[in-house]
Amino acid sequence: MDKQTSSRLKVRRIAIDTYRENVAYLHRDCLIYRAEGFQALAKVTIFLDGQQIQAVLNVVDDEAFVGQGELGLSEQAFNQLGALEGEEVRVAQAEPPASMNAVRRKIDGERLELGDYREIAQDIVANRYSKMEMAAFLVATGQNGLDRDEVLSLTVAMLESGQRINWNEPLVSDKHCIGGIPGNRTSMLLVPIVAAHGMLIPKTSSRAITSPAGTADTMEVLANIELEPDSLEKLVRNERGCLAWGGTTRLAPVDDLLISVERPLGIDSRGQMVASILSKKLAAGASHLLLDIPVGPTAKVRHMRAAMQLRKLFEYVGDRLNLHLEAVITDGRQPIGNGIGPVLEMRDVMQVLQNNPNAPVDLREKSLRLAGRILEFDPDVRGGQGYAIAREILDSGRALTKMNRIIEEQGRQSEVYEPGKLSFEVCAKEKGVVVSIDNYFMAQVARLAGAPIFKGAGVDLFRKLGEPVMKGEPLYRVYAEHQSNYDFAREFVGVNSGYSIGEKMEIPPVFVEF
Amino acid sequence: MDKQTSSRLKVRRIAIDTYRENVAYLHRDCLIYRAEGFQALAKVTIFLDGQQIQAVLNVVDDEAFVGQGELGLSEQAFNQLGALEGEEVRVAQAEPPASMNAVRRKIDGERLELGDYREIAQDIVANRYSKMEMAAFLVATGQNGLDRDEVLSLTVAMLESGQRINWNEPLVSDKHCIGGIPGNRTSMLLVPIVAAHGMLIPKTSSRAITSPAGTADTMEVLANIELEPDSLEKLVRNERGCLAWGGTTRLAPVDDLLISVERPLGIDSRGQMVASILSKKLAAGASHLLLDIPVGPTAKVRHMRAAMQLRKLFEYVGDRLNLHLEAVITDGRQPIGNGIGPVLEMRDVMQVLQNNPNAPVDLREKSLRLAGRILEFDPDVRGGQGYAIAREILDSGRALTKMNRIIEEQGRQSEVYEPGKLSFEVCAKEKGVVVSIDNYFMAQVARLAGAPIFKGAGVDLFRKLGEPVMKGEPLYRVYAEHQSNYDFAREFVGVNSGYSIGEKMEIPPVFVEF
Repeated sequence: MDKQTSSRLKVRRIAIDTYRENVAYLHRDCLIYRAEGFQALAKVTIFLDGQQIQAVLNVVDDEAFVGQGELGLSEQAFNQLGALEGEEVRVAQAEPPASMNAVRRKIDGERLELGDYREIAQDIVANRYSKMEMAAFLVATGQNGLDRDEVLSLTVAMLESGQRINWNEPLVSDKHCIGGIPGNRTSMLLVPIVAAHGMLIPKTSSRAITSPAGTADTMEVLANIELEPDSLEKLVRNERGCLAWGGTTRLAPVDDLLISVERPLGIDSRGQMVASILSKKLAAGASHLLLDIPVGPTAKVRHMRAAMQLRKLFEYVGDRLNLHLEAVITDGRQPIGNGIGPVLEMRDVMQVLQNNPNAPVDLREKSLRLAGRILEFDPDVRGGQGYAIAREILDSGRALTKMNRIIEEQGRQSEVYEPGKLSFEVCAKEKGVVVSIDNYFMAQVARLAGAPIFKGAGVDLFRKLGEPVMKGEPLYRVYAEHQSNYDFAREFVGVNSGYSIGEKMEIPPVFVEF
Repeated sequence: MDKQTSSRLKVRRIAIDTYRENVAYLHRDCLIYRAEGFQALAKVTIFLDGQQIQAVLNVVDDEAFVGQGELGLSEQAFNQLGALEGEEVRVAQAEPPASMNAVRRKIDGERLELGDYREIAQDIVANRYSKMEMAAFLVATGQNGLDRDEVLSLTVAMLESGQRINWNEPLVSDKHCIGGIPGNRTSMLLVPIVAAHGMLIPKTSSRAITSPAGTADTMEVLANIELEPDSLEKLVRNERGCLAWGGTTRLAPVDDLLISVERPLGIDSRGQMVASILSKKLAAGASHLLLDIPVGPTAKVRHMRAAMQLRKLFEYVGDRLNLHLEAVITDGRQPIGNGIGPVLEMRDVMQVLQNNPNAPVDLREKSLRLAGRILEFDPDVRGGQGYAIAREILDSGRALTKMNRIIEEQGRQSEVYEPGKLSFEVCAKEKGVVVSIDNYFMAQVARLAGAPIFKGAGVDLFRKLGEPVMKGEPLYRVYAEHQSNYDFAREFVGVNSGYSIGEKMEIPPVFVEF
C-alpha cells in the first residue's frame, strides 16, 4: 500500500451543527488513527492539501455514521475545511494554538501586549480555539484582569480580525446600550428620529442571546431584517438609517466567537464588554457613538461608582481609536415600556411613534433624550437643543413616516404576529405601591414563555415603580404560544413574582444623569 | 393532543462518545422545542420521571440521525439518564449549575469556603458542568489563585466526591511522582521491593494522558492491569502490593473530570495538582505517602524554590488530612532510564530487577532510594537503613520473584510486545558532551511515534547527560509501529534533536536532595 494513501481518511459531512466549534468524528476502530490517543488530547488538526483546520474529537461506535476509513466533520468544520465529500485528508494530533502560551501568561497574572492579543484573535478567528480554550481566555482576562491599555489592545485586535465598513461620510452616528433592561427598545425610536433629521445612523443590531428580545428580533415582527450588504448600504444611503440584523461573521468576528462562550458561562467582564462593543461599532464604520449605561439594583451595573468606572474606560479606549464617544448613565431600576418580548415591545414602539395616548411614557422620554444627545453630534445643532428637535420630529409624525419607509425598504413582513394565545396573569398578594421590579426575573419569565423564538411570547407589565396596586390586582400578564413554554413560565412565577410591594419611601432613588 | 405527551420527545441513543461531556442532539425543526432558543443557551436539562441530567446541545439537520420528535443522547448522557431507547423525556433550558456562582466569585478574586468547593464537586460529579464551565473553574482557581486552606478544602471536596477504600491496616504505603520525566518508572521497582519486605503498597496508576507511557501502560506490556475491585483486593492481601490501573470513576471522580479539561488546556495549577494527587491517594486508602518532585530546566518544577513551595503545600494539606507524607526533591534534568514508551520502559525495569549489567544505573539508584524512604515508614526500620534493605531485596532477586508473582496474579499477557518494526536514529551534529536532554521534547517524539497507544513505539536513548559523543554517532533511536506515526516523529525531529552537545562545564548542577 502506498505510504501517502495509507495515512488518509475519506471526509464525510455530518449534519450536526456544533455551534461555532469544529467537531471531528472518528470511528473507535479507525483503520489508521487510533482514537484513544487522539481523544485524550481532545483536539486534532485535519489536513487537506494546503488547507488545515483544528477540531475537537468525538469517537463514534457506529459504522453507519462514520466508517473505519472515514473522518466525519460537523457542518462548521466541513465548511471551514472546504472539502468535497469523500476527499482524502490526513489527521494529526493538534497542539494547543501557539497563542495559548499568552493565555497561560495571562493566567499567571502577566500583562499582555498588543501583539499577544493579535495572535489570540487570529487563532480564534481560524477556529483554532476550542470552547474550553476560549473559556480559559475569557476567565483569564475577566473581571479587572485587564488594565485599560490591554482593553485598548484587545479592542484593536478584535477590530482587525474582520472587515471594516467605510461610509465615506464625516459623521456616522451609532448608539449602543450595554443591556440588561427588558423592553429597552430606544433604538427603534431614535433611529427614525435621527434619520429623519438627516444624520446617518446605520444601526445594526444583534438578535437576543440571553435576553427575551433584541432590537433585531423586535424589528422582525414588522420587517425583514436580514439584508445583503449591498441592499443594506443602498437603504442606508437613501433613508439615512436602518434597523437591520448585524449578521455574524464579517465585522469583528472574534467577538461573535467569544460571545458564544461568554454568554452560556454567564461571565461579564468589563474589559471584554468594552472591547466587544467598541470593536463592533468601529468595524461598522461609526464615527460618533452614544452609549447607554443603565444603573439599578437588578441592572448589569448596580452602583454609580461602577457606572462611572465603566464610562471612563469606554472614553479612554474610544478616544484613542478616534471615536467620538459619549456615555450616558440612565435609570435601570426597572424594565422600560410595558411589553417584554418581540410583539409586545413592537406594540410599545409603534404606540410611541403614533403618539398614541396609551404609549409608555418612560420609553418615549428615554428615547427622546438619547435621540437629542445624538442630534447634538451635528455641528449645526446647538448644545441643549437636541431634545426639542427630537420631540418635534416625533410629535409631527416625521419619525413615524421615516419608520414606515425603513420598514418598506427592508421589506414589510407579510405575516401578522399577535401576542401568544395562551396567557395568565400574576397578581399582587398585598396592597401597596410597587417598590421594585426585578429586571433579571422579568426577562427570565419572558424567555421561559418562549421569547424571543416565539414572537408573541412575553410579558406585559400593568404596573411600574411607584404605582399603587390593590391586593389581587394583576401586576402583569404572561403570553405563550406553546403549552410547554406556558408550563415553564407558570412554574417559575409560582415561587416569586419579581415584584415587591411596599411603601413609596422604599423605592430606591434615581441616581442617574437623566 | 394531551398536554403531557405534547411536550415530550422520544430518546434515542447516539453512538458517539463525547468524552466526559453529555451531549444532546435535537433536530433543527424539532416539533416541540425550537432548537435556536436552546442552542444559544448551549445547555439543556433532560427530565425522565424523577431523573434529570444536563447536556450540551448540538443541532442536527438530518432526520436519519435524529427525527423531529426525537432527542438523541451521546453514550455518556444516555447512560447517565438511565433511559430506555424510545422512552419519553421532557427538555428545558438549563440554567448554569448553582455552584457557578461560587466560580464567578472566585473569578472576582474572592476566597471560597469548603461549602463552596463541596457544591462545585457535587455539580461536577453529576455532569452538570460543561467543559467550558470546568475550564472556567480551573482557570479561576489556577496558578496561585488558591491559598493553602482553599487547597485543603478542594482536596476534601474531591475526596468526598467518591468512594474511599479502607484496608483496615495501620500502615498503607503509596508513592506518587508529580510527573514530567520520561522513563521514570520507579514505581515498578519499588512496589516489588516494598511488597517483598511485607509492607502494604496497593499501588494503582493511571494510564498516560499527555506522557508517552504511564506505569499502567508499561505494566500492561507484561500483565493484565484492569482488575475488578474484588480481585484487586485479594491480590493486594496475598502479595502486599499490585501494579494495576486505578480505574476512572470510583475514587475521587471529580479529579478525572477536571483532568479531562486541564490536560488539553495545558494548565498546570499547583493547588489543583496537590488536591488532585492527595484526594486520589486518600481515597485509595493510603496512610503513608512518598512524593517524588523532580526539578530541572525541562521538568514540571524548574527551580528549587518552587519545589520547596510545592513540598510545603503538600505537607500542609497532608498533615491536616492525617496522611503521613514525605516529599523528596529529585534530579529532573533528563529522562530516567534509557527507554521511553511502554515496551522500552518495561525492558529497563526488567533489566534492573534481573540485575542485568546493562540495566540503567539511574533508574536502579533512584528506585532504591525511593524504596528505602518508603521502607523507613516501617517503625521497625531504623532511620537511614531503608536503602540498604531495599538494595538487599533487589540484589538477592526477591524483588524479581515478587514482581513475577504480581504479574502472574494480575494475569500474564499472552501477547508478546516488541519494539516497533519501523525505526530511525537521530545522530549528533557535532562532537562533545551531552549537556542537556529536553524532557518535554523527548516525550513528544515518543508520543508522535505512537506511544503509549502502540506499546512498541517510543525512543531509546543511547547517551545521557555528561556522556561524550562523536559527530555522527547516534543519540537515540525512534521506534514506530505505523508509517503515519513514523512520519510525524521524523518530521518533528527534523528541526531539533532535543539534545544539546557542548562542554562538561555547561551541564546544569544537580540541585536536589539525592
